[in-house]
Parts: sequence; structure tokens; C-alpha cells
Amino acid sequence: MVRTLRVAAAQVGRVDRGTPRAAVIARLNALLDQAAAQRVKLAVFPETTFSTFFPRYWIEDQAEISSYFEKEPASGIAECDSVKAFFDKAKALDIDVAIGYGEETPEGTRYNTASYVSSGKTVGKYRKIHLPGTFEPFSKEEGVTNQLEKYYFKPGDLGFTAFRAPSLKKVCGGKKSPIVGQLICNDRRWAEGWRVYGLQGVEIMCIGYLWGIDPDSMTREEAYKDAMFHHKVVCQAHAYTNATFLITTARCGVDDGLHPLISGSMIVDPEGHIVAENKTEEDELVVAEIDLDACQQGKNKTFAFAKHRRPEHYGPICERAGVVEPEEPAEQ
Amino acid sequence: MVRTLRVAAAQVGRVDRGTPRAAVIARLNALLDQAAAQRVKLAVFPETTFSTFFPRYWIEDQAEISSYFEKEPASGIAECDSVKAFFDKAKALDIDVAIGYGEETPEGTRYNTASYVSSGKTVGKYRKIHLPGTFEPFSKEEGVTNQLEKYYFKPGDLGFTAFRAPSLKKVCGGKKSPIVGQLICNDRRWAEGWRVYGLQGVEIMCIGYLWGIDPDSMTREEAYKDAMFHHKVVCQAHAYTNATFLITTARCGVDDGLHPLISGSMIVDPEGHIVAENKTEEDELVVAEIDLDACQQGKNKTFAFAKHRRPEHYGPICERAGVVEPEEPAEQ
Repeated sequence: MVRTLRVAAAQVGRVDRGTPRAAVIARLNALLDQAAAQRVKLAVFPETTFSTFFPRYWIEDQAEISSYFEKEPASGIAECDSVKAFFDKAKALDIDVAIGYGEETPEGTRYNTASYVSSGKTVGKYRKIHLPGTFEPFSKEEGVTNQLEKYYFKPGDLGFTAFRAPSLKKVCGGKKSPIVGQLICNDRRWAEGWRVYGLQGVEIMCIGYLWGIDPDSMTREEAYKDAMFHHKVVCQAHAYTNATFLITTARCGVDDGLHPLISGSMIVDPEGHIVAENKTEEDELVVAEIDLDACQQGKNKTFAFAKHRRPEHYGPICERAGVVEPEEPAEQ
Repeated sequence: MVRTLRVAAAQVGRVDRGTPRAAVIARLNALLDQAAAQRVKLAVFPETTFSTFFPRYWIEDQAEISSYFEKEPASGIAECDSVKAFFDKAKALDIDVAIGYGEETPEGTRYNTASYVSSGKTVGKYRKIHLPGTFEPFSKEEGVTNQLEKYYFKPGDLGFTAFRAPSLKKVCGGKKSPIVGQLICNDRRWAEGWRVYGLQGVEIMCIGYLWGIDPDSMTREEAYKDAMFHHKVVCQAHAYTNATFLITTARCGVDDGLHPLISGSMIVDPEGHIVAENKTEEDELVVAEIDLDACQQGKNKTFAFAKHRRPEHYGPICERAGVVEPEEPAEQ
């Protein structure tokens, strides 16, 4: 037990359209205070944390769209005026944070981004690669839930790049800095991103998400339960098969009275077991003490990649995006 | 409901070392009779079905080792004298079978193989790619459970090759033949094989397995429960994320009084839900009627590969087998 540290999923509840940044940040900072009180060293926040989940809405007003994006300077998100109060607080409390937000680059490109920030410095940055949804709304009516991430964001261009978190080195044994990776929401259902991180020896995956239910074919309760099942089964399977801890955090609640966003914030160990999970649909800190050496069983034995993987048979994964079906045999 | 058919996982219980082929085949044929009585058109049998799971033993007697392999002729396993009685029965009952066995080629190469046989013809063949275990025993004592697949088998050389099953075309709507894929046991934990099949539009995955528990660090009951958890979580997650039905079948029971092999035979739908599963640790037929059109939600919407996948970021999956960790940053 020499590589232990305390981590948290900092779940955030309902955030309606039009909620000011300052009101959201006050809630995030309250979660940071709770984290500090529990000696947490890393807190993972959700996707697009500083506002409502605007890709649910078809918005034509460019000023409103712009208002959902942080104008991130080259020096990193912690220096961005609109959200600096959050990163200053984390720095003051000596807590590393991984947090998702809408990023607008100095050139005006917009991404669905998560940054890992330690003492005000960006240590790792990820731009969401698997953008779900559509480029066009299925409805322009107010109050209708669209999924328009492909309209609002460009696909990420930073790959799946793991990084060391030196700030955590001293608190977990001092031998080596933990290896961290980030994904966002829909990415967690795609094995490829997980595996690219696994191939970098990732020990802690940080995944914020924000996931509406799809109640078209079932009741709201059934749809909620089904979405939660899918969330958990993919998170647990991919953490296990890549022998990594996972901290995954929801933006949940019933924003604007629309379909609910699921909760399900949890900390999963490298055997795929849930070691801590949320109890509410509100702002809530889910805390666990984790021992990074628990990754070794998977990394060195069960899933020792170098011994067992056979990349010569994986070609189609990297060669093409879509499906090529086998041909129908001739009639006999 | 135009593409429906009845399928089965044909679970096989305890088979001790030294059990004659004829005794095993009598049990398999009894399962085929049950399948016919329930109008099953495809039955999936376990891994190395015709004998005990010999890779648990360190065997030096070459005659005994040889006895565990079917000497498969070029015309296919259904023409192999040692097991012909099984395939003849399946043909007589008009049931397609997917079944695992130790294959010895005419050149003497040995594989852990599964063949999909329809009316005596091999329609698809798979040789296990992710061989678990070691080349050397950790113990040469009798009664000790090793995992020596790397010693007994060569890694498969046929890739992950999906195929059409024309025999099922007429029973499920007559439009197109179902697309089928095969994996064996440990493969089901590796996302890569699943994805290569997913990229061929697979609709029915057939996976036999045979999975001992690892009771070193827990009680037998805990180890059994943990192995079952891992089995289910990977099967459900990978079926869901590749939008395919899964028929997965155990060789279970307590062979030779050693550690138990888990059961867990089940049929999983393309949303990852278990639609039928075993109730015993014995020979048992697990049956479900499945509607192949249920794959369309996943294939065309949730996981529409061509719309959402980003192969330009997946390179390391195909470029290397093992881990390359990020460098430790210089001390600050």
C-alpha cells in the first residue's frame, strides 16, 4: 500500500439554461472545499461543466452560442478570466482537477475539451474525439432535446495522449508519477480510445460525462435504468480490460425540466469493480482511496499486452472507419 | 419481426480426464435432440468440447497430448472420423453448429479452433488468437491447475473473419444471410477481435469458453463470483458496443475435482441485455428466439461506425503489441 491517494468524482446536479458562470463556479468551489476536507488530491468534474448542456438546443443566436465557450488563452484554461475563480480555488487547496468545458481557441475553433490542471498549470489536455449526435437538429422547437455536438464542436485533434501527474507523485509513494488519461462522455463507449491509453500504461482514467436518456421507446424510468446499465457496463469493462482506475463524473439532473441526465458518478478499480458511487442526483462528492499498485495484476498478468496482443490481426481497426460486410454467397 | 430465428447455447458440464470421445459425443447429441425439439436452428457449443480441458495439466506423454486433438482433414472437421458422429447428428437434425476443439492440421500444427458447420460443410473457421497462459508450467504436480495454452497451441492464423450463414437465410426472412463471427474464451476480453468483427457488420457472435477460477487471493465462492462478473461484463459491453447478438457457451463443472470452471452460458442482445442464461452447472440447453433487426439501432444510430469512428487516432492499436509509457518529467 505505498501508492495510495484519495480521489473524487465531483458530481454536479441541475444547471439550467442561462445560469451565470459565477453561480456554477460557486457550487464547484463548494465541492472543492468538501474535497479538501477529505484530503482529496485529485477531483474529476463533468463534461461542459460551466454551463447547461447547450448541445441539446438548436441555437441560432451567435452571441448565445459564444457565451457557452471559454476563450482559452495559450497559457491554458486556468488563466481564462471567465473561470479563473475555479482554478484559483483548486490551486489554493492543492487539489489537481480534471474538468470539461467548451473551448474556443484564439483562432476561434471550438472543441468539447477537458483539461487536467495542477497548481494552475495544464498538465494534460484532451479534445473529445467521438462526438455523438448530428450536424442538424431534428427539431428547432424550444424545449426539444436535440444532440447537436457535431454542429457545435470540431472533433478533437490531440489524440489520446496520456501524461504523468507529478503533483501526485509525492502523495503516492514517490516512486513514479501516476499515468493519467482523459476521455469525455460518448468516448467511454468506444474501445479504441481506452486501448490507446492502455497502451500508454494508464493508471487513472478521468471521464466527465453528461448523458440524456432516450425515452422514445420506453417509459422515462425504463430509459433511465437502461442508460445507467449501458454507462456502467462499458465503464467497468473498459477499466478492467485496460487495467486502470477510472474516475467518472456526471452532470446530472433535470435541466430546464427536460429529459433527465443520468447520474452514475463512480470510482472503478482496475478489476472493474465499483469502489464508490453517487447516492444523489445533486452536487455530490464521491470519494475513494485508491492504491495504484492494484493495476499490476491486470497490466502484468491478465492483460499483459506485450505477451498476448496480436496487432497483425487488428488492421481493419486502423484502416477504415465503417463497415465492410462479407459478400452474400451465390445461391446453391 | 421478419428476421427471427431460434438459437441455443449448448452448455456442457463436467468432463474428466480420460473420458472417451464417444461418451462426450453422446451427451452433445442429446443436447442436439433437445435443440431440435425446440426448433433451434443454430447451437453454439463450448471450447475444446470433445475432451477435458487438457491445458490445465502439464503433460509430457506425447501420445496423451495427441489424443486431445482431432486430426482434421482438408475437407473439414465434419469429415473427421473421431467426431463425425456429432456432425452427422447435427446434419440429420438440420441444425447449424459452432463448436470448439483441438485441431491438428495434416502438417501437424495444433490450434485451439472453432468451426461453424452447416449440413456437414464448414462455413466459417476460427483459430484462437489470444492464447492465455504460459509456455511453461508453474507446477508439474498432478492435480495442479496450470494454464498452458501457449504450450499446446499455436496462435491462430485465420484472423477475425466474419462470414454469411446461408442456411439461416430462409428461416429469418429470406432477405440476407446473417453475418456470423467466432471467438474463443479469452478472446472475449479483448476489444480488438470484437471490433474487427463489428467492422464486418457481425450480427451473431458465437463464443465457446472454458474458464477456471483463480482462488489464490480469495475463497472459492468469491473467486467464482468474480470470474462470473468479469465474464458477463466483457460479454455484455462488447456485444453492445458492436451491436451484435452473442451466443456464449461454457464448458463448466468441476473436472477431476479441481477448481471449478464457471458456467454463465447466455444469449445477449445487441443492447447488451441478457435474454437467456443457464440455470445449472451441467449439460443444459439455453434457448432464445432472436430478431436480427434488433442490431439496427446500434449499427445505424448509436454506434454508426462510419459517422463516428476516427481511425486517424487509433494508430498505436495496430502499430505495437505492448506498452510505451509517457516519460517521467524532469524534477521541478
